Amino acid sequence: MIKVGIVGGTGYTGVELLRLLSAHPQVELVAITSRADAGRRVDDLFPNLRGHCALEFTPPDQSTLAACDLVFYATPHNVAMQTVPELLETGTRVIDLSADFRLRDAELWARWYGGPHACPELLSEAVYGLPEVNREQIAGARLVACAGCYPTAVQLGFMPLLKAGVIDTSTLIANAASGVSGAGRQARIDNLVSEASDNFKAYAVEGHRHLPEIEQGLSDVAGEAIRLTFVPHLLPMIRGIHATLYARLTAEVDLQALYEEHYRDEPFVDVLPSGQWPQTRSVRGANVCRLAVARPQQRDTVVVMAVEDNLVKGASGQAVQAMNIMFDLDESVGLDGIALLP
Amino acid sequence: MIKVGIVGGTGYTGVELLRLLSAHPQVELVAITSRADAGRRVDDLFPNLRGHCALEFTPPDQSTLAACDLVFYATPHNVAMQTVPELLETGTRVIDLSADFRLRDAELWARWYGGPHACPELLSEAVYGLPEVNREQIAGARLVACAGCYPTAVQLGFMPLLKAGVIDTSTLIANAASGVSGAGRQARIDNLVSEASDNFKAYAVEGHRHLPEIEQGLSDVAGEAIRLTFVPHLLPMIRGIHATLYARLTAEVDLQALYEEHYRDEPFVDVLPSGQWPQTRSVRGANVCRLAVARPQQRDTVVVMAVEDNLVKGASGQAVQAMNIMFDLDESVGLDGIALLP
Amino acid sequence: MIKVGIVGGTGYTGVELLRLLSAHPQVELVAITSRADAGRRVDDLFPNLRGHCALEFTPPDQSTLAACDLVFYATPHNVAMQTVPELLETGTRVIDLSADFRLRDAELWARWYGGPHACPELLSEAVYGLPEVNREQIAGARLVACAGCYPTAVQLGFMPLLKAGVIDTSTLIANAASGVSGAGRQARIDNLVSEASDNFKAYAVEGHRHLPEIEQGLSDVAGEAIRLTFVPHLLPMIRGIHATLYARLTAEVDLQALYEEHYRDEPFVDVLPSGQWPQTRSVRGANVCRLAVARPQQRDTVVVMAVEDNLVKGASGQAVQAMNIMFDLDESVGLDGIALLP
Amino acid sequence: MIKVGIVGGTGYTGVELLRLLSAHPQVELVAITSRADAGRRVDDLFPNLRGHCALEFTPPDQSTLAACDLVFYATPHNVAMQTVPELLETGTRVIDLSADFRLRDAELWARWYGGPHACPELLSEAVYGLPEVNREQIAGARLVACAGCYPTAVQLGFMPLLKAGVIDTSTLIANAASGVSGAGRQARIDNLVSEASDNFKAYAVEGHRHLPEIEQGLSDVAGEAIRLTFVPHLLPMIRGIHATLYARLTAEVDLQALYEEHYRDEPFVDVLPSGQWPQTRSVRGANVCRLAVARPQQRDTVVVMAVEDNLVKGASGQAVQAMNIMFDLDESVGLDGIALLP
Repeated sequence: MIKVGIVGGTGYTGVELLRLLSAHPQVELVAITSRADAGRRVDDLFPNLRGHCALEFTPPDQSTLAACDLVFYATPHNVAMQTVPELLETGTRVIDLSADFRLRDAELWARWYGGPHACPELLSEAVYGLPEVNREQIAGARLVACAGCYPTAVQLGFMPLLKAGVIDTSTLIANAASGVSGAGRQARIDNLVSEASDNFKAYAVEGHRHLPEIEQGLSDVAGEAIRLTFVPHLLPMIRGIHATLYARLTAEVDLQALYEEHYRDEPFVDVLPSGQWPQTRSVRGANVCRLAVARPQQRDTVVVMAVEDNLVKGASGQAVQAMNIMFDLDESVGLDGIALLP
Repeated sequence: MIKVGIVGGTGYTGVELLRLLSAHPQVELVAITSRADAGRRVDDLFPNLRGHCALEFTPPDQSTLAACDLVFYATPHNVAMQTVPELLETGTRVIDLSADFRLRDAELWARWYGGPHACPELLSEAVYGLPEVNREQIAGARLVACAGCYPTAVQLGFMPLLKAGVIDTSTLIANAASGVSGAGRQARIDNLVSEASDNFKAYAVEGHRHLPEIEQGLSDVAGEAIRLTFVPHLLPMIRGIHATLYARLTAEVDLQALYEEHYRDEPFVDVLPSGQWPQTRSVRGANVCRLAVARPQQRDTVVVMAVEDNLVKGASGQAVQAMNIMFDLDESVGLDGIALLP
Repeated sequence: MIKVGIVGGTGYTGVELLRLLSAHPQVELVAITSRADAGRRVDDLFPNLRGHCALEFTPPDQSTLAACDLVFYATPHNVAMQTVPELLETGTRVIDLSADFRLRDAELWARWYGGPHACPELLSEAVYGLPEVNREQIAGARLVACAGCYPTAVQLGFMPLLKAGVIDTSTLIANAASGVSGAGRQARIDNLVSEASDNFKAYAVEGHRHLPEIEQGLSDVAGEAIRLTFVPHLLPMIRGIHATLYARLTAEVDLQALYEEHYRDEPFVDVLPSGQWPQTRSVRGANVCRLAVARPQQRDTVVVMAVEDNLVKGASGQAVQAMNIMFDLDESVGLDGIALLP
Repeated sequence: MIKVGIVGGTGYTGVELLRLLSAHPQVELVAITSRADAGRRVDDLFPNLRGHCALEFTPPDQSTLAACDLVFYATPHNVAMQTVPELLETGTRVIDLSADFRLRDAELWARWYGGPHACPELLSEAVYGLPEVNREQIAGARLVACAGCYPTAVQLGFMPLLKAGVIDTSTLIANAASGVSGAGRQARIDNLVSEASDNFKAYAVEGHRHLPEIEQGLSDVAGEAIRLTFVPHLLPMIRGIHATLYARLTAEVDLQALYEEHYRDEPFVDVLPSGQWPQTRSVRGANVCRLAVARPQQRDTVVVMAVEDNLVKGASGQAVQAMNIMFDLDESVGLDGIALLP
């Protein structure tokens, strides 16, 4: 059994981790911390867990965490980097679901996240947690920086085209939309039912924090600096990300075959049959990214569509997938839940 | 392994059965029938099942079904009663999710369901599939008539009070509300997003078909004919039933203790701590009914609140629970999924 | 032209007042106050008003308000009572949309609203702003305490039965449900999309603040102290209240005729034809309460259904209706907008 | 008073026309036809109209329609073209909300709409009903072909850039999303609450019928054949279209000034202040298209966002706007309703 701790379990990625880990046969949940809710039962805050999780939130305490084999950080950015270095020294491995260790360039991080990084020396060691790209490095990592929700969908969507070298890399467009749970469990007027439940809008059009993360990842794949226009939108629903990607084709290629081939052996990437388009509801609660590719009017613009549950393949499910890899388990253990439809 | 067939798998209780049974370790799904969709892959209709279910719909065929140990009917009412008698004779057991075998009185059935019953001789043999009432009879049954969605919530809610004999049985009120999935997967204007997604209304106020079923069940529990006013409402969401029950207290009683005691050993009924009220989201996708009881202003009206996922504890989950009982499995096998929240 | 001011215009009743008053031909909007948003354009906060309202929020200032003929308070409770006495002395009339002046009994108010009332001497003068009950007193009032959202629906629903004296007044039940906008424009986790948009629950079961208001109003109508069990629920939508009312009949009566007769001359109460039940979407954005009455199974429980838009007939529309009466205008001026359906 | 008839009033554009025309001071509604619902009161089908519209549906009858000054066709495509020629000969003018007269090229029409056009000789006479482009031609038209919902948003969004000649016209991208009401009031499983209310997906990726309409309009504006990739998506809400448009800049230009200048005198196009992005809720129920323009990272991709209510500025409101122009009324008469927010 892997002894697991969670730091910051009162948000949506926290409760989703609890849902997945409570049912994971190889995990023993030993601690979940929250300064604000210390002493409160987890299932009092999240009543879906009644009967499945008897833990209480405890105050963050390094010695408890140090006794774990693995600690997940499900905290806002700027938190994990304060205590991860110390924890790693005790031998505990870390999967960080926040953005703290996703960018290799500390200056870039500082520019997008509003201040200097607390432990830039760890940025080169941290392994970017997108198993479809970095499976082997994840296996041996002390510190995994889980890919962000938008970045997962956008990278999985563009990757086969970039690997194949068949698109113009300077004019990529990612038009993406996310359910409101992506904004976290914070008391903000913008995310009230009365503001966001019968509405659709773009946001962060001038520049979203996931842009440098996506550009870093796609440039790695392409072997050259790519350029992306990324416009996120807010959907009037809770879970789900849909990315619609556009690129200019520079070579003839069988797109359907390219995608099926690229993801043939991936347990959590599903290329739909030709002519079907993915729906967010087909992945609600499940750790899978479903993809489709099209070439409208047979012109030279290729369109890729990718869906995922932002809290599962876009966050907590991906984190558990990384854990399975790190601890040499079957990658699918605890992640075979079927999406809830309708 | 139990060899299982499903008749009529293209509706919402059908896809929910598939979700639950695909993950059930003791079940081998051998056939799912649909006249209209014969030859189509199940996961083409329900893309959440991609990677989990390789079956195709087949035309209804008695010999295939007769080779099963158990057949679920997930059909509209008036269908199962046409072929169940013949199937039972082959030794195959049946769990009917429709209303065909829920009422013991064939005349009452005919009055509410618009025509004579096709096999009234089976009505007395059929066991009403509410495990919290009929667990033992279910174990030995050839034919189980799964309790309806509203009836499950209303009966579980009123039962402790009626057993204890502490309320006036002639003035019961059940004010209930259901998500739209309860109306089934049928092309009806009334259930379009543009009609029902930003709306709330009562319906069937003059008399809903679940009324005689509930009155039959509650009268059995009470040991006398009870009288219920039942007003269902349509919620602008997909899954979930919430019942708010009202009764006049005729004796002093510790309500919280009464409920906790009554359901102490039930794996799928959860009595909330005093002062907490159930939410439909706490049971989304899970086979559990959560209950709370209150006595506002300490007056003589008791209020009970019950929630369930109408497709799980109100239909397909309950059917699997009955199957587990019938085949002497642990009642919880395949039913331990945690509700999806948020 | 009536010179109108609004205190506290940054909430949902505030923006709804602005929508109605901007289009009202007899109103000149002269000031809208907000301490927090002073200096900000109103249409910057509420973009639906772009092109319709050029005002800026100003800090609360008694002299500006004193220059108005009428001031609406669209503030949380406990605010209006601090400054209304002073304002009334300047000759300005007041319509308070909060609960500060709705209860005649200062002790009762203190018990339900968490502290002593700031100007109990005004409680007897304040006219309860439900035009269908108090039209004449409203006409001459200096201070109108607009009826609450739930109280409007529940009182309009029960009134014909109580006036006719045909029900048991000690066992009234009001099962009501409201859209989330009723909770106001406040940053609270409970009202986030991810918490409340795919959920249904009862709340304040032990006692909601609208209970004493409703009991006061219904007792006035009945001429005796009535007793009500009131259970509010939270709907996963923005606008709309639906009340389902239950009472025991004590006399034979033609219910449909009773309701049609009672509301024959009311411009904003609509009794549906027999056998139709009201839907919240039929009143979205409109100043109307639609009602229906039923007697299921011809038993002795009568069921009344009432719907309204909580922000219009349940708040701001009702306030404008009161204004029209106070200033001797046609009661419907500015209130003839048709509900938005779908 | 303009005597107005409506053909096919049982859909969503029909009820929206009724909402707008019932309140229009210069219109006398004399007939609304429906074969299926003849004899039924309009407000029985659409309860929001109770108290505002006493009409009954009548069977389609040319003599009644011929007595009108103007007839709106709110029918599916393929219907208007059957009877419009005959009606025009009687001197009645026509505004067609369907697609029958939007394309000038009969062969193109036949290819996209599945069969030959019934009166190709009228295609050149029909005026494309987008007032911001064709105001003068609309004024004198006998037959106006109202612009489609997506085409309105996409054309208003791209127009300033194309007029200014500052973008590459061969790589335009329109990523658009619509509420479900755009799919009409038809009994289709795909648009049920349980299918579409907690979901987001692209559809018609290989080619949507609005593509040739948009390309025709944008090519007219550009003075050359443009090329567009158009991917529509289905939003889990009722009303609202959001278009996110992408183009490659080929010249330096002050984008904000360009847009403000272009639409300075348009009553129903609103360019937001720099740095604000439009929200669909800001136009719910209102006849306005709100626009914003951005240049992320100051790179060479320009992003335009446009929102409209698909049933108002995208259909019935635009039709009334055209009517006002045709009958020499102030263009805003009957169209000054403020969007419903929240």
